[in-house]
Amino acid sequence: VTSILALAQNARRTAAELRSLDRGRKDRALHAIARGLRDEADLIREHNARDLEASRAQGLSSALLDRLRIDAKVIEESARGVEFIASLPDPVGSIESMQRHENGMLFGKQRIPLGVIAMIYESRPNVTVDAAALCLKSGNSVLLRGGKEALHTNQVLGQVVGRALTASGLSPSAVQIVPATDRDGIRELLGLTDYIDLAIPRGGEGLIRFVAENARVPVIKHYKGVCHMFLDRGAPLDRAVALTINGKAQRPSACNALECLLVHAEDAERLIPPVAAALIEKGVEIRGCPRTTALVSAARAASDEDWGREYLDYVIAMRVVSGIDEALAHVARYGSNHTEVICTPDQSHAQRWLREVDASCVLVNASTRFNDGGQLGLGAEIGISTSKLHAYGPMGLASLTTEKWVVIGEGQVRA
Amino acid sequence: VTSILALAQNARRTAAELRSLDRGRKDRALHAIARGLRDEADLIREHNARDLEASRAQGLSSALLDRLRIDAKVIEESARGVEFIASLPDPVGSIESMQRHENGMLFGKQRIPLGVIAMIYESRPNVTVDAAALCLKSGNSVLLRGGKEALHTNQVLGQVVGRALTASGLSPSAVQIVPATDRDGIRELLGLTDYIDLAIPRGGEGLIRFVAENARVPVIKHYKGVCHMFLDRGAPLDRAVALTINGKAQRPSACNALECLLVHAEDAERLIPPVAAALIEKGVEIRGCPRTTALVSAARAASDEDWGREYLDYVIAMRVVSGIDEALAHVARYGSNHTEVICTPDQSHAQRWLREVDASCVLVNASTRFNDGGQLGLGAEIGISTSKLHAYGPMGLASLTTEKWVVIGEGQVRA
Repeated sequence: VTSILALAQNARRTAAELRSLDRGRKDRALHAIARGLRDEADLIREHNARDLEASRAQGLSSALLDRLRIDAKVIEESARGVEFIASLPDPVGSIESMQRHENGMLFGKQRIPLGVIAMIYESRPNVTVDAAALCLKSGNSVLLRGGKEALHTNQVLGQVVGRALTASGLSPSAVQIVPATDRDGIRELLGLTDYIDLAIPRGGEGLIRFVAENARVPVIKHYKGVCHMFLDRGAPLDRAVALTINGKAQRPSACNALECLLVHAEDAERLIPPVAAALIEKGVEIRGCPRTTALVSAARAASDEDWGREYLDYVIAMRVVSGIDEALAHVARYGSNHTEVICTPDQSHAQRWLREVDASCVLVNASTRFNDGGQLGLGAEIGISTSKLHAYGPMGLASLTTEKWVVIGEGQVRA
Repeated sequence: VTSILALAQNARRTAAELRSLDRGRKDRALHAIARGLRDEADLIREHNARDLEASRAQGLSSALLDRLRIDAKVIEESARGVEFIASLPDPVGSIESMQRHENGMLFGKQRIPLGVIAMIYESRPNVTVDAAALCLKSGNSVLLRGGKEALHTNQVLGQVVGRALTASGLSPSAVQIVPATDRDGIRELLGLTDYIDLAIPRGGEGLIRFVAENARVPVIKHYKGVCHMFLDRGAPLDRAVALTINGKAQRPSACNALECLLVHAEDAERLIPPVAAALIEKGVEIRGCPRTTALVSAARAASDEDWGREYLDYVIAMRVVSGIDEALAHVARYGSNHTEVICTPDQSHAQRWLREVDASCVLVNASTRFNDGGQLGLGAEIGISTSKLHAYGPMGLASLTTEKWVVIGEGQVRA
């Protein structure tokens, strides 16, 4: 078994090769990966069946088994995802503008890969192919440490990707599956500051906290999405209903789903009953403040734990506030810097919301569900950040790069 | 004494106020700080004298006493530095471009402050004023933890700044001096992930390693600048001499000073003797490989420790290499991702150098000394990063900001 240190050293060596690859070679390798996935679909499903069987024997829930399962449709979607990433522009190499120094030399910033990325994730094996393709396209090598229940699946996916890389004349070490299945292994990986430039954890809050607390390498993460919408005075009812239902019920398990509705007191009677009725019709449970429960007989009384809570389910918190100040204060206290919406006809309130709310995505009169890499023009998403360093919000290919300075002179020295 | 936690909580609260300040208010406060420094110059010098006396009694070296000393000239320079920062464009608020989503809503990225910055530094008290001004201009609140030998000076500077903030209608908690003088205090500060968005250590490698190893908050740092120049085949002698002397001898104590010269073997006899003579004339000691010492009788033989060494002094390492491949390999092995120069007449070698060298600044035919925020158009510099996340190279005001997504719709929901 190759040690974790040796894997990371391989990754660092390979990163130096990947750094200056031109787009054509990267895209040809991506197309080879897509072909490999389709050609070896049966092999992948065999290995996946072993993981499923072992997990079933261990009594994993059917929801977890569903996440783990790979069928023909999932493989085809993965292959198309890789082809789509091949179609995106190369994030590496561009120099936005060169300036001329007063001494005549030219200088500017050139976009380059970060180097070595470590992805730490849980059961979904589709992350394996996705992350491999995004890292390759952006010129990074990647260490993939998925969930232990998906280990056979991830290993065969790693082999398929590795064969495609080799066939394309690239080093298979560009994409490596980390075999370590215990947390000591992750801890070792997260300490290798000389070899790893960035760790991205994806999964439940427990995994993410473990990574954040044990990493010596930089980490970009988000813990949770406690997304609010404030229905301001004068919000049109049809719009309030549409944005609430889309935010809460279109995909409640997503981190950009709406979790808490704040309603202006002067419009509570006008807005709350019909909005609540629409939610209840969609099967959403309402946990409300006293003024809400007085207006909606089916609503349960919210407890203190309901403010700032991420349900990821058909549940919503609702609270009447005295106006935009109280709404802003609620969001500042209970929000998770993820996604915050105001629904308002008032231009100055819209501007205040945009200016004062501290979140990775602040929206006026649009659904929380738009805080998404695909919707915001990033093409594909490798994760989302709710901390501010390097990236804030959805992370696309550009977030896997940085910029170095380049200077072109003719013998200039500093005075 | 206010606890470190309470200081950090104040800073977080104040950050919310600073976030949406317009440029006029920030610049007026900066001018008030500059006036305060001039008006209270005597008071500042009195407190500085106490620090100097205590440090002298403890036997600090005269070099350290020099760094600690504040005289009328230093105060005037500080005040002018603050006025210069006021004259720079506001890094906050701009949206480079808004795109239109296919559903009609507008979206883009707006530049915002990071929030709360912790500066951890050593003896130079001028960092106190500099960092305060840069953080204020970029809308961040800052916690300043300078060296314990400069504590009185830093505290009086903090008071002067605080009075100027109050007089300008801003909270004095925008700039706070951390009184803790031991490493436990720093450790506590570096663990406050809910309150601090970024720590920037500045000082010797020991301090920086301590911060990097003990921080739970994000850190941007650089350990050292081991800067190389490769004199390629055909490099013009006058240019080789000028770039070498400027890189090594203009300011040897700077992190962008030249530390090692690599020379193409075919031109070693032509280039090394005159370049060495010019260095020796400037009082530079040469530590060379066997081929170098054979050409320069005054050169000492380099030991293994001389490769990859940051002298910060009138010393240079010199090594003959077989060509660009060996030069690139030497830089990849011994460089510190800081500043790397090629001096070459060969366009394809210049392009290879720019493409393949992994450093925060890669230069062709220009002095290492240009890797500097002022020279590269940043106006002012708060630090330099040799790791890739968020910033790589000199960090100006923009490095103290990030971007959030803003979306302006008219009721759009996700399909």
